[in-house]
Amino acid sequence: MISKEVLKKVRKIEISTRGLVNDVFSPKVLESLPGSLAIGHTRYSTTGSSTGRNIQPIVVNYKSGALAVAHNGNLTNTAQLRSGMEREGSIFQTTTDTEIILHLIARSQEQLLENRLKEALSQVAGAYSLLLLSEDTFVAVRDPRGFRPLCIGAFEGATLMASESCAFDIMGGSYLRSLEPGEMVVVRNGEMESHRLPPAPEKTPCVFEFVYFARPDSRIYDEKVDKVRRRLGKYLAREHPAAADIVISVPDSSNTAALGYSSESGIRFEIGLIRNHYVGRTFIQPGQQQRDHEVRVKFNPVEGVLQDRSVVIIDDSIVRGTTSRKLVRMLRGAGAREIHLRISSPPVSWPCYYGVDIPTREELIASRMSVIEIQEYLEVDSLGYLSLEGMLEAAGEVGPMCSACFSGDYPVPITDELGKEVLEQ
Amino acid sequence: MISKEVLKKVRKIEISTRGLVNDVFSPKVLESLPGSLAIGHTRYSTTGSSTGRNIQPIVVNYKSGALAVAHNGNLTNTAQLRSGMEREGSIFQTTTDTEIILHLIARSQEQLLENRLKEALSQVAGAYSLLLLSEDTFVAVRDPRGFRPLCIGAFEGATLMASESCAFDIMGGSYLRSLEPGEMVVVRNGEMESHRLPPAPEKTPCVFEFVYFARPDSRIYDEKVDKVRRRLGKYLAREHPAAADIVISVPDSSNTAALGYSSESGIRFEIGLIRNHYVGRTFIQPGQQQRDHEVRVKFNPVEGVLQDRSVVIIDDSIVRGTTSRKLVRMLRGAGAREIHLRISSPPVSWPCYYGVDIPTREELIASRMSVIEIQEYLEVDSLGYLSLEGMLEAAGEVGPMCSACFSGDYPVPITDELGKEVLEQ
Amino acid sequence: MISKEVLKKVRKIEISTRGLVNDVFSPKVLESLPGSLAIGHTRYSTTGSSTGRNIQPIVVNYKSGALAVAHNGNLTNTAQLRSGMEREGSIFQTTTDTEIILHLIARSQEQLLENRLKEALSQVAGAYSLLLLSEDTFVAVRDPRGFRPLCIGAFEGATLMASESCAFDIMGGSYLRSLEPGEMVVVRNGEMESHRLPPAPEKTPCVFEFVYFARPDSRIYDEKVDKVRRRLGKYLAREHPAAADIVISVPDSSNTAALGYSSESGIRFEIGLIRNHYVGRTFIQPGQQQRDHEVRVKFNPVEGVLQDRSVVIIDDSIVRGTTSRKLVRMLRGAGAREIHLRISSPPVSWPCYYGVDIPTREELIASRMSVIEIQEYLEVDSLGYLSLEGMLEAAGEVGPMCSACFSGDYPVPITDELGKEVLEQ
Amino acid sequence: MISKEVLKKVRKIEISTRGLVNDVFSPKVLESLPGSLAIGHTRYSTTGSSTGRNIQPIVVNYKSGALAVAHNGNLTNTAQLRSGMEREGSIFQTTTDTEIILHLIARSQEQLLENRLKEALSQVAGAYSLLLLSEDTFVAVRDPRGFRPLCIGAFEGATLMASESCAFDIMGGSYLRSLEPGEMVVVRNGEMESHRLPPAPEKTPCVFEFVYFARPDSRIYDEKVDKVRRRLGKYLAREHPAAADIVISVPDSSNTAALGYSSESGIRFEIGLIRNHYVGRTFIQPGQQQRDHEVRVKFNPVEGVLQDRSVVIIDDSIVRGTTSRKLVRMLRGAGAREIHLRISSPPVSWPCYYGVDIPTREELIASRMSVIEIQEYLEVDSLGYLSLEGMLEAAGEVGPMCSACFSGDYPVPITDELGKEVLEQ
Repeated sequence: MISKEVLKKVRKIEISTRGLVNDVFSPKVLESLPGSLAIGHTRYSTTGSSTGRNIQPIVVNYKSGALAVAHNGNLTNTAQLRSGMEREGSIFQTTTDTEIILHLIARSQEQLLENRLKEALSQVAGAYSLLLLSEDTFVAVRDPRGFRPLCIGAFEGATLMASESCAFDIMGGSYLRSLEPGEMVVVRNGEMESHRLPPAPEKTPCVFEFVYFARPDSRIYDEKVDKVRRRLGKYLAREHPAAADIVISVPDSSNTAALGYSSESGIRFEIGLIRNHYVGRTFIQPGQQQRDHEVRVKFNPVEGVLQDRSVVIIDDSIVRGTTSRKLVRMLRGAGAREIHLRISSPPVSWPCYYGVDIPTREELIASRMSVIEIQEYLEVDSLGYLSLEGMLEAAGEVGPMCSACFSGDYPVPITDELGKEVLEQ
Repeated sequence: MISKEVLKKVRKIEISTRGLVNDVFSPKVLESLPGSLAIGHTRYSTTGSSTGRNIQPIVVNYKSGALAVAHNGNLTNTAQLRSGMEREGSIFQTTTDTEIILHLIARSQEQLLENRLKEALSQVAGAYSLLLLSEDTFVAVRDPRGFRPLCIGAFEGATLMASESCAFDIMGGSYLRSLEPGEMVVVRNGEMESHRLPPAPEKTPCVFEFVYFARPDSRIYDEKVDKVRRRLGKYLAREHPAAADIVISVPDSSNTAALGYSSESGIRFEIGLIRNHYVGRTFIQPGQQQRDHEVRVKFNPVEGVLQDRSVVIIDDSIVRGTTSRKLVRMLRGAGAREIHLRISSPPVSWPCYYGVDIPTREELIASRMSVIEIQEYLEVDSLGYLSLEGMLEAAGEVGPMCSACFSGDYPVPITDELGKEVLEQ
Repeated sequence: MISKEVLKKVRKIEISTRGLVNDVFSPKVLESLPGSLAIGHTRYSTTGSSTGRNIQPIVVNYKSGALAVAHNGNLTNTAQLRSGMEREGSIFQTTTDTEIILHLIARSQEQLLENRLKEALSQVAGAYSLLLLSEDTFVAVRDPRGFRPLCIGAFEGATLMASESCAFDIMGGSYLRSLEPGEMVVVRNGEMESHRLPPAPEKTPCVFEFVYFARPDSRIYDEKVDKVRRRLGKYLAREHPAAADIVISVPDSSNTAALGYSSESGIRFEIGLIRNHYVGRTFIQPGQQQRDHEVRVKFNPVEGVLQDRSVVIIDDSIVRGTTSRKLVRMLRGAGAREIHLRISSPPVSWPCYYGVDIPTREELIASRMSVIEIQEYLEVDSLGYLSLEGMLEAAGEVGPMCSACFSGDYPVPITDELGKEVLEQ
Repeated sequence: MISKEVLKKVRKIEISTRGLVNDVFSPKVLESLPGSLAIGHTRYSTTGSSTGRNIQPIVVNYKSGALAVAHNGNLTNTAQLRSGMEREGSIFQTTTDTEIILHLIARSQEQLLENRLKEALSQVAGAYSLLLLSEDTFVAVRDPRGFRPLCIGAFEGATLMASESCAFDIMGGSYLRSLEPGEMVVVRNGEMESHRLPPAPEKTPCVFEFVYFARPDSRIYDEKVDKVRRRLGKYLAREHPAAADIVISVPDSSNTAALGYSSESGIRFEIGLIRNHYVGRTFIQPGQQQRDHEVRVKFNPVEGVLQDRSVVIIDDSIVRGTTSRKLVRMLRGAGAREIHLRISSPPVSWPCYYGVDIPTREELIASRMSVIEIQEYLEVDSLGYLSLEGMLEAAGEVGPMCSACFSGDYPVPITDELGKEVLEQ
């Protein structure tokens, strides 16, 4: 929820448009916004198709008035819940899991929004960092395992909530702290109260946020992303050293890990790939066709850096392997003599059911090939992945984390059909 | 529903935009439409505000798949039903009465759409001509009193449904017949079946359709609008003759009545007002401010016709009186010597709860003033309204009709709050 | 120029968009306009293709600053002038004849805009009613033969100029008078001066404006259009009587002539065709394809009026004959027993080189067929055209007029290539 | 011209829209383009206001047909030429210098486009890299001093032209060579011919392209930008060493220079600032107000990197000083203990008249303050600019270059009024 998006205190305006946040919220639009509570979302859809109706925040009317919700994460028992409710006559306007929560809230006989929400959440499983906004109340809640990040900031007396702390920085606000797993924060009439959901057997925040998603200038789970990511690079250098002339990164997500690798290995860091900034983040574009088109124009190699060099290139992860293969060929074309690919996380072999848009097992190269096979497929001189232990150690004091996409060890069982099928393979 | 809109057999496309039908459905858009079933609506909102969410057809997902509905008319017991459902936890995406019907359908345990619909309609009261479209079935139904029109046409083997028959003509189709009050027509796999809802004590189609809404080239209730409207003018001439040089109409809605007045009275018909065609139908624009702006540029008097003449001007009705007053001044400004205003219906004194956007009693000039007072307010030399009896006689063989906006005699009680308040005044 | 468009005193804003005037000039746009001089145009392109660059008013920069021009009419010697200027190195931004005038103005060594314009106009031939706007001066001029109309109005101390007086009425202004042929009116600092161009051997205003273009509520050439058009209908009734039950018109352009025919013949006027108002004026749409599409949905017959009747139908003119043929079939389909087509002008047999978009001789039905042949082609029971003499007599006190499209008698020779070719056939 | 834009062989389509290239040229638009020659431009306006009419490429019609032009650079004698042409009656559609060239071409009596262009260019002074496209010919030319870059590439048998070679890479094409100063390349019927303009006394390519504009993965003037920019950083480290913990850059334009500084000084390179990628390149936005808004959200400091560190920060240049001041405060806020600002070019003290949008002397901080004063104003612990000699030496084998914005030594005199005034200060 709300990654890179800012939340102020506001009331009942809907602006749902596709486009960059900066384009949608022009100065003119911003000026026209009344009220003192607001909620926004720049989510790429992970369940349901990316049609207009599924765009978040979702806004509905129910007995207590209007209610808006933004949801980061995925529920794991929605199919059951949804078909049950449909059997009783419920109507859905979206095909997302998020709407289930709204129906559960609407069915609750509790009076206060926070109590309705607690009742609703007692019936759902999976990953959710949620923001809810009614006409007078603002609620933020993180699931008991704390799969997805959510943090609190402040700006000129207002309370801010966002996935990552950089959202606060950009608007000149300050970071306060992360919500605890299972914590629910209620803001009403300027007062903030903290509640607790029933605890989970274990807290399992997503480690992939450190590996790829979060920005290095953010804090998530009360850790500085930059520190963790640098350690990922350092540990990678220790586990998989390379005799090379230079270290380069796949910009920008691997820059910090590459600096860690460089400082640990003593191999000089260089800028060997230039990102073409007028194309957006590859990962966030729905649809494979678009993704391919954009990879082609996303990076450009710097010949002067690469020519006749033995190169360590750091990437955060390999998903399908297609982008990596193209990158490697690009580097060879620019004259790189040797290419040593180092990945600052273990092989991604399993889909994510908790909110990261990782494709099915068939599409994941690491579920079909061994590291040696991948090395051959990618045509690199050597390939090294950071170990699971190395990655988790780098994450520091967070404690146990969800690393299901690497290990297949799912902390919450998947009861929805899609999940079952994949797991039964 | 679907006045002036065409319905072909189609499947699950949503195009909801504000604008003229001709602009929204460009040749390019039309070509891009797949499938063989379609439903459309050009409704001005009569309940709920005219926001995007309330635009019809409304499309939802429920246990049996997608369902679209377009509704002409107003339900009279929605507040009760809605609050009941909300109490049980239902969520609404619009503020319209139409969505109630969808919820009732979704809650039904029947298998067939027509049976679900019958169960749903057994719980609602008021006026509805409805079109429903599921992925394989097309249902049209008219409420047992038949408040609003709905007719069946055919085009190249396809079944068409529309409020007025002119919709069929425009696309080259042919008129078959009106749906009976309480008739439900189901089209599935090219087969058409007729069902019956439980009968009402009396059939009461809306007489205002003849007076104003329907186009003279249409049939509604199996009557030719042109014939009825001409009779309205003739009877008006008999009830309220005038010694004048010419008869003019407020174009275009009163043209036919004016010709009837002219032929009965022997006074020459002339074109004394020119409509500026680039402004849309006044009535259909939501918001008073826009209405005022557009009245100013809507008509232009023809001086050569009006100068020094004694003029009978025919209008279909007087609602607030503000437009009429402006028109009268315009005619005087163009040199009319005498102005005899003749209205082809009785004074509109009561709001409509069955789907016509008539304002509250306070705004209706005839609920505040006598005919003599209105005559003075409008500054006309004489004013004559057609009698209730005259109007109903003109409607011909239709039988009893709803004339509540003229008589205050509401055939279906109004149980919604808004209605009660007004009626208790 | 400026038919149906309003001109106030303003300064250097450009809004050139396709769309209805009402849509382009929203209240928001209107409020945002600074200054006290304005010029506008709703022209359908008669020379040059209808691309964005050719949309008027044309605005250019030259040594004396910005200059905007709107032009109603067509020049007849532009090809020569343009190729001469191009040979000397001139650059054109449009493919219209209007830009020639701007180049001639820019080349003039005179100081005052009106003198530059006089010098420019001394070199061009053909038809022009022109409005020019510099940063401080507003000039209106009508060619010495007065082919196209142009009139002066006033509104709250401001001077207005428009093709037709109805433009003044709509905004609440008043009509002052027509510009004389060859008159140039200069408005500067609130002062109005009248100048004269060297006189033409004869004044020849376009008679087709009375027949079709002008609105009946307008004055052009200081005559009331309504009066002239009614006389066209009366004289038509005298020249071509018919034994019929009713007189109907092709709405709206022939309404007034039909009333004239009705009053002269004593045959009752009826409304037998309903215009579908959400489609724009057929004539004004560029491109034949669009025209055909729109004819199909433009009119709908009123069966109750036409059934078993012998009908006189009045139209203003027949151009290609295709629309008329479709209309006649529509009337037969609605049950008309006999159809007597009466045209309130003579056969259109020649193209217009002075600003009316009449197609080439090949496309004009009357240049290929006799009246009897046309009658057969259109499948009418009888066909009568008003005579040239009748038409010109109806025009009243205007004096000699251009009727070249009817007579082939071109008052100004056509020296441009296109013209030559056609005339040499 | 055409910086970051791709040119294929095409014919006479105009798409001029504001927005990112990627957004304007959607796959759908690209598919719809016919022909085999194309020209494009992503210029920020340096003369004339940034209105729609001034957007390049400019397209005109003249005696030889349509002609499109895209121009990188600024002419220095346009005011004279323009007023001369206006005196003779020429009309201009833009307020840019580029249109002058089109007028000169149109006035030429030569037959071939290349000869017309030579004649035209013999009359203009200043900086121009030009692309011209007629219906069958494609001409690229660089002014005799070679102020602005222009290079030739190839793609599947087609000839490409662009300011920077990275444009070829992105589309999968290959770099051939830079045009020589004074070289004109004509492509017609697939044949390429090279011509020469009369030589200038000296070649003076712009050094600021190396300092800021060009991308490190490009070649300009046949030099690899990356190599030059790295040398800028190295020489800067030699001239202005600093005792610091880390070197950071203002991303992305200073990344390469910072790596050079780091490798020369042995101080570790770190990523201390994160660019918010959804905001465009500050420099390219017209209007100061927008620029300020965007600076605020453009960068975010990485606290984990900066806290308690003594930091060398590398920037390419200081223009007004306002952005630098904000950046410095941001670094302090993130905990930086010492800030040593190093600039990889000399103080910018003079405006550019050859195509770089540098503001007036009043706005340039270095024309008002000494280095010490700037250091105080920016609140840095030390400030060091690369020397003029160092910068030019870093540029390598290019030879003499234009460094007027640093030195005030203008290789071509400025005869236009604006220029004179500024220079006479």
